[in-house]
Amino acid sequence: MQWTASGDVNLQPMSDEFYMALALDMARHTQGQTGVNPVVGSVVVREGAVVGMGAHLKRGEGHAEVHALHMAGERAAGSTVYVTLEPCSHYGATPPCSKRLIEAGVSRVVVAFEDPNPQVSGRGIAMLREAGITVETGVMEAEARQLNRKFIKFITTGLPFITLKAASTLDGKIATRTGDSKWVTGDAARQIVHTMRHQHAAILVGVNTVIADNPSLTTRLPVPGLSPIRIIVDSKLRIPEEAKVLQAGEEGDQDTIILTTVDHGNPAKQQLLEAKGIRIIPCGEGERVDLQAGLKQLAVSGIPSILVEGGGAISGSFLAEKMIDEVQLFLAPKLIGSGGKDSFGFIGPDMMNDAITLSNLQVTPAGNDLLITGTPSWEG
Amino acid sequence: MQWTASGDVNLQPMSDEFYMALALDMARHTQGQTGVNPVVGSVVVREGAVVGMGAHLKRGEGHAEVHALHMAGERAAGSTVYVTLEPCSHYGATPPCSKRLIEAGVSRVVVAFEDPNPQVSGRGIAMLREAGITVETGVMEAEARQLNRKFIKFITTGLPFITLKAASTLDGKIATRTGDSKWVTGDAARQIVHTMRHQHAAILVGVNTVIADNPSLTTRLPVPGLSPIRIIVDSKLRIPEEAKVLQAGEEGDQDTIILTTVDHGNPAKQQLLEAKGIRIIPCGEGERVDLQAGLKQLAVSGIPSILVEGGGAISGSFLAEKMIDEVQLFLAPKLIGSGGKDSFGFIGPDMMNDAITLSNLQVTPAGNDLLITGTPSWEG
Repeated sequence: MQWTASGDVNLQPMSDEFYMALALDMARHTQGQTGVNPVVGSVVVREGAVVGMGAHLKRGEGHAEVHALHMAGERAAGSTVYVTLEPCSHYGATPPCSKRLIEAGVSRVVVAFEDPNPQVSGRGIAMLREAGITVETGVMEAEARQLNRKFIKFITTGLPFITLKAASTLDGKIATRTGDSKWVTGDAARQIVHTMRHQHAAILVGVNTVIADNPSLTTRLPVPGLSPIRIIVDSKLRIPEEAKVLQAGEEGDQDTIILTTVDHGNPAKQQLLEAKGIRIIPCGEGERVDLQAGLKQLAVSGIPSILVEGGGAISGSFLAEKMIDEVQLFLAPKLIGSGGKDSFGFIGPDMMNDAITLSNLQVTPAGNDLLITGTPSWEG
Repeated sequence: MQWTASGDVNLQPMSDEFYMALALDMARHTQGQTGVNPVVGSVVVREGAVVGMGAHLKRGEGHAEVHALHMAGERAAGSTVYVTLEPCSHYGATPPCSKRLIEAGVSRVVVAFEDPNPQVSGRGIAMLREAGITVETGVMEAEARQLNRKFIKFITTGLPFITLKAASTLDGKIATRTGDSKWVTGDAARQIVHTMRHQHAAILVGVNTVIADNPSLTTRLPVPGLSPIRIIVDSKLRIPEEAKVLQAGEEGDQDTIILTTVDHGNPAKQQLLEAKGIRIIPCGEGERVDLQAGLKQLAVSGIPSILVEGGGAISGSFLAEKMIDEVQLFLAPKLIGSGGKDSFGFIGPDMMNDAITLSNLQVTPAGNDLLITGTPSWEG
């Protein structure tokens, strides 16, 4: 018998965390499908048994609690409702969930964390308490915040959450000195990458990657996934007309957006691309695309999260401009030696003490490779 | 209460492995002090209780079984003796252990693995069986072989076991573009490095490291450790006379050996160094030190294991010449960008598929850093 590290729920003692963990698991499985909305799960419990479960599935559709209350029906009266995010208090696409909870006659609401939107934070909880419902908050808060870190960044800053994904050898190379890069990592790592694509609203690469590899930038997995919007950084509109990312209509293909400069000097190419349905966003007065300005426009267009997949120069620019919220670095157990292509093409600091440091480090096996996850510290 | 991953022996079911694990643990703690000899532990058990324990401590002194039998005294008769390596059958510095076990009247001997020396392998076990003693082999064999991998390499090939230690950022740099390298990793990693020094007979660096950093290359730990013999690769005898590695008499200082070329062109410097007690080994007819030839001479001098600590050029040479048996790579959670100094300065292959691959990969946390251990595959 193998010892099993992760939770067989039959062996987990029942508690508020027992039900909240289920609500978080439901939310976790909807990552990537809720657009600018958070992922939320909810569980309704009465007289020692689960009577309702639900999750928010899609922007504009019902919230998690509504689905869960609907499943519970009349048994919602007197129940405890677990929900991974504070129930809303305002009329949006749907009526306020707090009102629904009150109308359903629930006795107790357990919340993982308060709405991070400062304009509404705490109002839903206050509404419930005013109606005589017992409310507890902070149950599995850290896990719930981690799960919604993209939403929290977007709602509190108005900028997309940026994940930097790279895959290098143990000595930090993404290609050999001849440029060969097929393949650094194995199948297991690539399936994780495609799952990351599903979980981000958009994917971003530099035009050099399009020219060199002609990727489709779609999500390809053993089960269907959602493909991200494709963003190409291309200061001079050098993208080949026949590039796969410019072709529409194929299964899984998403919209494509090109970030370019104001004076890209190629108005005919712009017209041609726009006629294909490609959106062109000019940002940056000089030679280079102003990535900060580009991100703001993308956020305004409703893109809450972007997966930056390189290559080395683009990854380096995002690091140099301190725009990365999370690094996902795959390391293959290989050494390629000097002269290979560096994983991150930016001019680093003079002193080792001034290196970009990653905190919240996690190491996960991915087949024969390792996935190292960390949060860059940008203070100072 | 925290769940504890590693063995509280009180919770380990009693079995042959229960006692062999203790014998291995005793052997593990003597790594570095047995010279060209293996590390060996032994436990004597009679009527359900431990009656003797011992380990081989130092070349020329008693073997593990002898110490354990001595502790057991008359209670050795009828006992079971656990030993991590096949008892010897020949008269060397000490009488054969198999003879001692027979004379002590033991009933059963449990051995982790047979002597890797093909000239004597199996003889000790045969001698015991001929005397009517029950012998079992292969108990925790993989762990025991791993523990003695340096000895096994040395005894079967006549070459020292070479460990390559490096410490880089996550993007594979050991220094910034200005050369600053203080410090890549933290205290916990450095204490592991000094423990590695204790566990190797010698430490090897290039003369550029001596010139740049003037290291003492001694073992410095919260408890006293054994310092390795210092080996400097210096093709032109450029080593500064005042280098710390050339000074003798300080606490913990060990002998120093310089590998140089036959035509280093500096006989006066050689005389001066030899007068200081430094051993000069000329190897290589051309511009560069012939590392393979050097290693053979070091092995003949009784050096069974060498820790290569760089810098990048030396590490790269050892990798390029396929002379590394084990890689110990510390990765600090930092990114330093392009232009920094590469961890391994060798010209790698053209194709990613031809990269040096590491197997038996292990990842160990070391404070805020990671230690990645692997075995390079040199076939093909």
